[in-house]
Amino acid sequence: MRFILKQASALVLMAGASYAQEAPIIHDGEFEFLRAQFAEQWDAQDAEIEVKLAEIRDANEGQPPNILYILIDDVSFGQMGNRTMNYVTGFDTPNINDFATEGMSLMRMYTEPSCTPTRTAMLTGRHPVRAGVEEVKVALVGEGLAAEEVTIAEILKEKGYNTVHVGKWHQGDIEQAYPHNQGFDWAAFPLHQQVQLSLMTRDAMVANMLGFHSSGQSNQFQLDERFKPYGLVTGVEGEAGGLAREVDMAPGEEWTQAKYEEMNLRYQRQALEQLERLASQDEPFFMQYWPLYPLNFVYPEQAVSRNGGFHADKLQVLDGWIGDVLAKLDETGKADNTVVMIMADNGLMYHYEGTSGLNQLIYRGGKTQHLEGGVRTDAFIRWPGAIEAGSAAGDIVHVSDLFTTFARIAGATDRIPRDRVIDGTDQTALLLEGEGNSRRDCVYVYEGPVLRSVVKQEFKMHLPAPGQPGAAAPVFNVYRGPREEHPLVGYSLWSGASFQDMVKRHQKTIAKHPHLPLGKGVPYEGIENLRPESELTREVFSSWQ
Amino acid sequence: MRFILKQASALVLMAGASYAQEAPIIHDGEFEFLRAQFAEQWDAQDAEIEVKLAEIRDANEGQPPNILYILIDDVSFGQMGNRTMNYVTGFDTPNINDFATEGMSLMRMYTEPSCTPTRTAMLTGRHPVRAGVEEVKVALVGEGLAAEEVTIAEILKEKGYNTVHVGKWHQGDIEQAYPHNQGFDWAAFPLHQQVQLSLMTRDAMVANMLGFHSSGQSNQFQLDERFKPYGLVTGVEGEAGGLAREVDMAPGEEWTQAKYEEMNLRYQRQALEQLERLASQDEPFFMQYWPLYPLNFVYPEQAVSRNGGFHADKLQVLDGWIGDVLAKLDETGKADNTVVMIMADNGLMYHYEGTSGLNQLIYRGGKTQHLEGGVRTDAFIRWPGAIEAGSAAGDIVHVSDLFTTFARIAGATDRIPRDRVIDGTDQTALLLEGEGNSRRDCVYVYEGPVLRSVVKQEFKMHLPAPGQPGAAAPVFNVYRGPREEHPLVGYSLWSGASFQDMVKRHQKTIAKHPHLPLGKGVPYEGIENLRPESELTREVFSSWQ
Repeated sequence: MRFILKQASALVLMAGASYAQEAPIIHDGEFEFLRAQFAEQWDAQDAEIEVKLAEIRDANEGQPPNILYILIDDVSFGQMGNRTMNYVTGFDTPNINDFATEGMSLMRMYTEPSCTPTRTAMLTGRHPVRAGVEEVKVALVGEGLAAEEVTIAEILKEKGYNTVHVGKWHQGDIEQAYPHNQGFDWAAFPLHQQVQLSLMTRDAMVANMLGFHSSGQSNQFQLDERFKPYGLVTGVEGEAGGLAREVDMAPGEEWTQAKYEEMNLRYQRQALEQLERLASQDEPFFMQYWPLYPLNFVYPEQAVSRNGGFHADKLQVLDGWIGDVLAKLDETGKADNTVVMIMADNGLMYHYEGTSGLNQLIYRGGKTQHLEGGVRTDAFIRWPGAIEAGSAAGDIVHVSDLFTTFARIAGATDRIPRDRVIDGTDQTALLLEGEGNSRRDCVYVYEGPVLRSVVKQEFKMHLPAPGQPGAAAPVFNVYRGPREEHPLVGYSLWSGASFQDMVKRHQKTIAKHPHLPLGKGVPYEGIENLRPESELTREVFSSWQ
Repeated sequence: MRFILKQASALVLMAGASYAQEAPIIHDGEFEFLRAQFAEQWDAQDAEIEVKLAEIRDANEGQPPNILYILIDDVSFGQMGNRTMNYVTGFDTPNINDFATEGMSLMRMYTEPSCTPTRTAMLTGRHPVRAGVEEVKVALVGEGLAAEEVTIAEILKEKGYNTVHVGKWHQGDIEQAYPHNQGFDWAAFPLHQQVQLSLMTRDAMVANMLGFHSSGQSNQFQLDERFKPYGLVTGVEGEAGGLAREVDMAPGEEWTQAKYEEMNLRYQRQALEQLERLASQDEPFFMQYWPLYPLNFVYPEQAVSRNGGFHADKLQVLDGWIGDVLAKLDETGKADNTVVMIMADNGLMYHYEGTSGLNQLIYRGGKTQHLEGGVRTDAFIRWPGAIEAGSAAGDIVHVSDLFTTFARIAGATDRIPRDRVIDGTDQTALLLEGEGNSRRDCVYVYEGPVLRSVVKQEFKMHLPAPGQPGAAAPVFNVYRGPREEHPLVGYSLWSGASFQDMVKRHQKTIAKHPHLPLGKGVPYEGIENLRPESELTREVFSSWQ
């Protein structure tokens, strides 16, 4: 398998070499609609931007900026970055609040409604469905991000960047999907989303009855011993082209809340170590720090926040850690030539509200849902001297735009694949020229494989269910009705046809450029110290394949 | 009637003279509970505060500070004062946002859930039910704030302040309730809440079908021509002890949206004029500016906000006007010795959401409701050199506290009545010493005459309906469940008894110091130029009395 991967990697490199700068990127139909209206203006602006980027490189010994991308798990819009909401929720995010004042607040950042697809969109610049990605579960799946997908890490690496990933990954349990096989020189990550495994502990069981542990049940009629996950691989580390190694578990050892907390601490420690190491090298760096916190389901020994709930408290802890990462970056002297972005991957799981501030607050809905509460998140980006400090932009941005924009900033646009649809729009103009310069005014919002709504400007249509007439599709003005509760006939009747046209253009693009398949394989291949219980779990899993 | 009023006023003055500084203010039982725990600490702090206040007076030629109190109508918490929420709602409040950074943000200000009671609480320092005040309707009622109530304006006037009221008043249509008979030297105000009358116009009828106008109905079976209000008095102006005069309506004239907009413009103009006049005088001043906007139900000719809805747009307009008032204060050179407060009176009428951004956003519920969305509002207070710029306080504050606190700041605590319950807590320590120095950690929340919930620290009990058992009363943690949707058995079972005790203490205080009656009288007395149609309306109204 590793051999095949290396071949795939080589193919990508060869393909990369053949991307002519002149070949246009294949965008969705809607982008071409906009481009037809603004081509001249955008081309002129792009020429200015090239000059600006060159000036910035010249001021930094010819090097493009470093990129530090911090992606937080399941935090709804408004929960970090502003003091007013801190007072509502009873936990503080002073470091992120301060950070927000040092760069641009992207006030209308759309993600996908769940962890795996949002991360795929950022890594590939594509709607996850185009890569066959829907959602990756915590248990074994034998699936993951395909080797054929081209990640931002691969692109930047080809341009000489050192690349590191630390923390949550959640792109699958097959070898080709591991970050060190997807463009990262080095990676430390849990093979699944570890908090879900942490729910299977005695600590979680007694914490407000949220978890499951076999000691709390008689298990009298249980046959299947693998329905309740057992023997799963936990945290691994790996280097590009090498094997992964599980780092924190001995054969027969049981996963506990203490181990989950230690895992979080370790990633924080490694983020600091790697940042220091990367900053000491001559090459520019691209580092992803994707913490597991605030996800957590056990109350702290002693609360640090006024809220005190397990989720709220860990977000306050994480804010402190992010402060430490930013301080470390300052210490290295590289802060001025580093683009730092902090955002969340989707709204929180409000389904469990009442227990820990897991609430639908400003927007309705949360994780797994196409509602604004599922796909709108706080997002802050800082680039001293290039992005105006204290600025904000209400323009629509989608998480896939980061792929295209980071590539542009790194001078790597020519490495963006030309043989597949790229949904990411280059938002460098927005960052450098400010609010009003987005090249996107719409988003297609999927729940897994299903297109559930379309956002255009201040309007949003919830698409009718299969078989339902288009006239049944409600349209909302997200300023006047942010909670998407009261559709108005006045919006629906004139905008319905326009929205349906947008869906048709999107579908035509898919018909012309079909989705690529999800990566498939044997789970846990490429791990050198697989524990016997993990081996057994894999065997049971494979018995059905 | 005027004669009687003057007598009443004289009585108040005499009573005022007899308030010995040593006689304790009668507070509610819950306050005494706290005082028993903190008396020594508070007394020591009060001694320090007296020194501080004296220093401030000494630095200002021996004068206490001016007070400018701006109270906005029906704006839910989070809708003004912070940029993040501006981006959510699509309208901007840059002046109020800036103002918020110049003083203290009171992050947990509780009001009453409706206009009239909130204003009564601020004016008298008492829960409105103690003054017999529930709600005053737009049509004729023959009721209002009783002459026997002692307002903050009366107290400050006795201490040499010049006092002015401009804008919404909404304390009743009887002579004793008019602001110029309640302690204000001069007042300009609509006799009712004018926007409700503005709904009875042709403009409002065609604006999204929100209003009523007789031309839009056949009126075929109508008998009563007064059910649809007609001939009501609109804007009046008056001087202390004198008659009011209606200023903007000729006999037979019809009220229109244009007249409503002109009325708003006039109050803004008068606010600026009065501020300039007051600042030019030797005495300190107390000025209330209580705008009618953002209440409005007709779309603007041309939107100024991204939202564009009638409510949202007028809040943006009003923000600009408030900026003009603050600039005018700067211009007078009195800003440094003026306490300025900007807040809203209660949550907005979300019942009509979808039409103009009238949404339940952060908290659930709105005007008329005991939910946080009804009684939590944005509140910002600035006092250069005394209140720390850019500070915030999560302490609980109730709007009645302003009465007691403004009195303290003005050196008029000795004028606070000692013969009735005062609910307002002196919050000077909070303002001068910062977060954590509130002398209140609870609020009784009424809907009209009914006690609906009790807030204590981070917990809030919704009281059971009459006849329902106490065990049915849900308790919420407002940090973990700000929308009061998911009561938890774990909170209710231990806190239930404590909450019931609080209710008992409150009821015992009422039994000992019964509520005073609402003022009653003949509507529209004391207006010198009553129009014939207003006279007719009063006659029809009186036919039933």
